Amino acid sequence: MRIYDIIKKKRDGYELTTEEINFFISGYVSGEITDYQASALLMAIYFKGMTLTETTALTLAVKNSGDTLDFKGVKGIRADKHSTGGVGDKTSLCVMPIVASLGLKVAKMSGRGLGHTGGTVDKLESIPNFKVDLKASDFENIVNEVGVAIIGQTNDIAPADKKLYALRDVTATVDSIPLIASSIMGKKLAVADDVIVLDVKTGSGSFMKSVSESENLAKVMVGIGKNAGKKICALITNMDAPLGNSIGNSLEVIEAVNLLKGSYQSDFYEIVTELATEILTLSGLYSYNQAKSEVKRVIDDGTALNTFKNMVKAQGGDVSVVDDVNNFKKAKYSIEVVSESEGYIYSVDTEKYGLSALTLGAGRNKITDVIDYSAGIILCKKTGNYVHKGDVIATLYTNNKNALKSAKQILLSATKISTEKPQINNIIIKKVY
Amino acid sequence: MRIYDIIKKKRDGYELTTEEINFFISGYVSGEITDYQASALLMAIYFKGMTLTETTALTLAVKNSGDTLDFKGVKGIRADKHSTGGVGDKTSLCVMPIVASLGLKVAKMSGRGLGHTGGTVDKLESIPNFKVDLKASDFENIVNEVGVAIIGQTNDIAPADKKLYALRDVTATVDSIPLIASSIMGKKLAVADDVIVLDVKTGSGSFMKSVSESENLAKVMVGIGKNAGKKICALITNMDAPLGNSIGNSLEVIEAVNLLKGSYQSDFYEIVTELATEILTLSGLYSYNQAKSEVKRVIDDGTALNTFKNMVKAQGGDVSVVDDVNNFKKAKYSIEVVSESEGYIYSVDTEKYGLSALTLGAGRNKITDVIDYSAGIILCKKTGNYVHKGDVIATLYTNNKNALKSAKQILLSATKISTEKPQINNIIIKKVY
Repeated sequence: MRIYDIIKKKRDGYELTTEEINFFISGYVSGEITDYQASALLMAIYFKGMTLTETTALTLAVKNSGDTLDFKGVKGIRADKHSTGGVGDKTSLCVMPIVASLGLKVAKMSGRGLGHTGGTVDKLESIPNFKVDLKASDFENIVNEVGVAIIGQTNDIAPADKKLYALRDVTATVDSIPLIASSIMGKKLAVADDVIVLDVKTGSGSFMKSVSESENLAKVMVGIGKNAGKKICALITNMDAPLGNSIGNSLEVIEAVNLLKGSYQSDFYEIVTELATEILTLSGLYSYNQAKSEVKRVIDDGTALNTFKNMVKAQGGDVSVVDDVNNFKKAKYSIEVVSESEGYIYSVDTEKYGLSALTLGAGRNKITDVIDYSAGIILCKKTGNYVHKGDVIATLYTNNKNALKSAKQILLSATKISTEKPQINNIIIKKVY
Repeated sequence: MRIYDIIKKKRDGYELTTEEINFFISGYVSGEITDYQASALLMAIYFKGMTLTETTALTLAVKNSGDTLDFKGVKGIRADKHSTGGVGDKTSLCVMPIVASLGLKVAKMSGRGLGHTGGTVDKLESIPNFKVDLKASDFENIVNEVGVAIIGQTNDIAPADKKLYALRDVTATVDSIPLIASSIMGKKLAVADDVIVLDVKTGSGSFMKSVSESENLAKVMVGIGKNAGKKICALITNMDAPLGNSIGNSLEVIEAVNLLKGSYQSDFYEIVTELATEILTLSGLYSYNQAKSEVKRVIDDGTALNTFKNMVKAQGGDVSVVDDVNNFKKAKYSIEVVSESEGYIYSVDTEKYGLSALTLGAGRNKITDVIDYSAGIILCKKTGNYVHKGDVIATLYTNNKNALKSAKQILLSATKISTEKPQINNIIIKKVY
């Protein structure tokens, strides 16, 4: 078998066999296949696509390139959710304790943020002393006792994906559905879960800008999951605006805790409860309607909040910030951003809102950047709201005074105000089973 | 400017600017742009193509990546021809002395053979003591005195092409018209000629298998030449069969000398005289009809043969082999290949005929292989001829006895015999001005 023939075959639009895909991935990881042959193949895949059979084979090859985590010590049905990445997306912080409160086990491995999107692990680390690097046995014990624990991703998971992603990132081959799907699912399948619910974002804050693209990606990922024997579905959700009213690590933890205490923005509540309901329904333990009402109950009666607190405690975190969110350390500097004109907030460029928060210190430009946990944005007005000149749109928080001016400019330039009232899309656009 | 943006722009089907193309070529040659980014861009060009403006810019960037040869000491109108590579293609050996006999100057830089196609420089080196590495001043003097001299290609011509070609060869990005055209024309334009006639081969012995592909390539190359201020045209010629009746270095020199002495196969004579006529017409010194009859005259009266002899003499070669081709050293071994059935030779796989000659020692598998100058094939029957069982189709010559069996098998398997009489295409299919 020669990589040249595999490149040519894909270039000419033919379906690659599982053996050819395995040959490519194992050869690329071992270094026998060069970067320049891999990038030619990736560009050919960009243009010619892959069938679901090929994409599943690629996903499994990526998964099998590194360690797989069985968590055999965890008793019960294991569930996970995965988001394709958005701005202000703190849903995992609520969904995981909710489903853990209702009998599922969540042994979650989460990523860190990069660029305009945040990461669950960073958000949790804004809780003082919260530890995301646990020994496997401690991790399993917490999952068994509390129902949920969250750790950072290890380097030994799917090394092929790391190498491929680094190459795609510099060769303009990121935006390819089979490559995106196999990257996400290769890492997901490396962790043995029974139930997976995907949150595929669409709109200005996600990297899939149209609903049809997002739906195609969702279908492929659900197809891969089914081929791998998982119970899986996907929600296509709206990322034309940041989720909820906060962007930034401790600010988002505060918003998540507030939801579990019964105080929330409607878009955030709807997505959290729907994701949790779908996970519980797929698990087979509940009907959809039972799941829906049980989710409401564990929020209303404080069970889910308690599960969240138990997880924080078990992972070494300071629960006083959960008991009273005012105990979170506040940023030194803040300014209010006021509207310069009157009208409806017609649309916002969500990615730029994320970049504004990044500028304030809430994220990373490169992997080695240090995060300012208290930095970020609280939104006072969202798309569809009517504002007068001088009304506060948002408050910016940071410990880096110099960042305020440009963060404010980015935010204002990303906010379009119009006399016309905008159409507001549902937060949940579609479901893919 | 970033190479990432250039890759993405081409991937998305936009036209690159001259600045972007220059940035790519200079960065790639200097090593600042990596092989993996270059291969991604080449694959994007494979799929999205290039306009004539882009292809011209790429050609000039390739040309300007190395030395350009002005040959300022050469007096008169300088002409060249270029073939895209065929089997048994010894036309340059006749065309060059013919046009030199009629007042043009030919300062030709030629390549060596690789794979199933031969190279003019190798053919000339089958003449004992013929030297193709001349000092620039000696080269110019010979051109001025004799009218024609031929040297090997130096390493300093178009280094970008060498680097790009090596990458294309291992990433399945060879078969792209803008990349082929810019590679050929980048090297051609590095030598200052006034008139260029291209011989674009089509059919089983060339790498363009269809007439329409060959015509597209010819149009692009002619367009580039015109954009660069050259007098240029292209002939699309038939390579569904080897040209003439010989394949192999000294065998082809013998066939070329025989033509200049008045003895020839009709396909070979037609292509030689037409190429020479087009060069002379483009030069402006002759009308087409004048050129046609002058070409015939200098063959018939021995003028062209004399020019060829003078070139051989000036370049140190042994003219006794020209005076009497029996003076060429003969191969130690030969066998006759006979037909195993009766019928018309319906078609031949010309590339395989070339590989049969390569097997006998007439060519190179890799650049460092040593050529057996006397090895090759004399064809006794060609497409359209009727053969009886036992009739000799070809005679094989070699100094490597072990090669005879497989060379014979390759040749027989490449010869299709049928009761049906085949349609024979003209040797000159089309002209592109």
